[in-house]
Amino acid sequence: MRLLPKQDTFFDMFEKQARTVDQGAQALSALMTDYRDVEEAAYKIKTMEHDADEIAHTIIKKLNTTFVTPFDREDIHALTSAMDDVLDYIENASDRLALYEITEPTEEAVKLVSILVEATTLMVSAVCQLRDMKHPKVIREACVEINRLENQGDQVNRMAIAKLFKMHDSPIEALKWREIYDHIETAIDKCEDVADILESTMLKSG
Amino acid sequence: MRLLPKQDTFFDMFEKQARTVDQGAQALSALMTDYRDVEEAAYKIKTMEHDADEIAHTIIKKLNTTFVTPFDREDIHALTSAMDDVLDYIENASDRLALYEITEPTEEAVKLVSILVEATTLMVSAVCQLRDMKHPKVIREACVEINRLENQGDQVNRMAIAKLFKMHDSPIEALKWREIYDHIETAIDKCEDVADILESTMLKSG
Amino acid sequence: MRLLPKQDTFFDMFEKQARTVDQGAQALSALMTDYRDVEEAAYKIKTMEHDADEIAHTIIKKLNTTFVTPFDREDIHALTSAMDDVLDYIENASDRLALYEITEPTEEAVKLVSILVEATTLMVSAVCQLRDMKHPKVIREACVEINRLENQGDQVNRMAIAKLFKMHDSPIEALKWREIYDHIETAIDKCEDVADILESTMLKSG
Repeated sequence: MRLLPKQDTFFDMFEKQARTVDQGAQALSALMTDYRDVEEAAYKIKTMEHDADEIAHTIIKKLNTTFVTPFDREDIHALTSAMDDVLDYIENASDRLALYEITEPTEEAVKLVSILVEATTLMVSAVCQLRDMKHPKVIREACVEINRLENQGDQVNRMAIAKLFKMHDSPIEALKWREIYDHIETAIDKCEDVADILESTMLKSG
Repeated sequence: MRLLPKQDTFFDMFEKQARTVDQGAQALSALMTDYRDVEEAAYKIKTMEHDADEIAHTIIKKLNTTFVTPFDREDIHALTSAMDDVLDYIENASDRLALYEITEPTEEAVKLVSILVEATTLMVSAVCQLRDMKHPKVIREACVEINRLENQGDQVNRMAIAKLFKMHDSPIEALKWREIYDHIETAIDKCEDVADILESTMLKSG
Repeated sequence: MRLLPKQDTFFDMFEKQARTVDQGAQALSALMTDYRDVEEAAYKIKTMEHDADEIAHTIIKKLNTTFVTPFDREDIHALTSAMDDVLDYIENASDRLALYEITEPTEEAVKLVSILVEATTLMVSAVCQLRDMKHPKVIREACVEINRLENQGDQVNRMAIAKLFKMHDSPIEALKWREIYDHIETAIDKCEDVADILESTMLKSG
């Protein structure tokens, strides 16, 4: 056990985890704009999810063997769990596209994924501010903006489900898409959780 | 930051929040018995939900800037969050009635909403006892009664879903109603969460 | 209030609760292999669930009136809640089989329940190690194995839902089974939660 950990390694790992989550979102977005080889794309995203999982485990392990941490232990735990959740839901969405043999994305799915990518990009930039807190405004603004994206995602999802439910002739398709929309929207929600944790961490350290 | 907050303002705000939640339940109940202008009713409930949200934010803000609180900080946080949740689910239910273009309420929806109104009414009277704890029995009895209502809601929901699933000819209608029933039932569940928090707060202070 | 509780009674109650949960899983498994008198089987499982509930309440009550506990209060609370959850989901599954008038179990339901029984059996043997911690390896191995079963359950559930969604002609049946699969899978997930709590308790005490 280390008494004096190199404190920046937590930051290194957070940034690495945030970037992996963002890569997952980008990969899902690439699939949306060029919809083919779905199995392969889903597999690629699954690999990224395993990578992010391993980073999360390393962070938790380090947390359990470190006396002095750069900020509250619970916040470190919450932050890494929330980032893990974002990619879990992204992976769920891409897994279902393959598993349910979806032949083409709906307009609403494309819109939701583009909102998701905006949110993960902002998340990365906010996580990168944790290290030195030189630009707390970046965290503050990312939080406001991710909150706005989350509301937008919720609206798109509501309208998307209402639209699905008007397609009375294919209830199974409605069920499939509904689940996929929910996974994407939950991924966006979890970005908001990350932002909230970053904001409260910043306030405590300020 | 105040060292000596006027302690009663937390109670004022709790009561205001509880009453706003109850108004939302009453508005949903009014819609059930006189089912028209659904969009307008849903909009009205959305406004109430925004009001309750603002009260919750004020409570959290006050909590973060007050040294001495009338009871445990975590309980204040949990209480205001749980009340917020009740109205969120009520708003979800009314939103879906409009969004899914439901033309008339089912018998089971009417029954669930009447159980909900009983629960929010009891919730208000229990929250109003927090201030002076002169009648702890009111809190105790409200808890027992809300628990009974929650079980009753669960039974109505189970039977309602079983009934929906027998209507093999309209699966989309089943999906819509199932979601609406779930929102109403969850609102009742959250009333029970409020009651549980009140009870444990009362036990600690007793 | 007791200053010197007989410490082993917590262990007695944990074991009793674990065994009751396992009996519930066995009863669901018996129903799967000999599918008849569904109402009666569901009622029997409901009774077991009530019994387990009462044990959980007794544990929480003892926890609230005991100064010295054999391990962390939060872990005792988490352990008993997680075991309670396992049987709640088993009861939900059997209740739905009766309520939705399911006439015969699917191959996938049988598979999921057999995974569940493996998990609850391992859970019992791990819980029984808590008392003297003479064989920490049993807990360790049960955790690894339950984790493997949880992954297997997730895979079976995914494939089962994909299969349901190919039966385009009976969406209501798809909805019913999907819900039942989810309850069984969640019961398996909750066994993993129990295992995780046992493992962390063991690590702290070691």
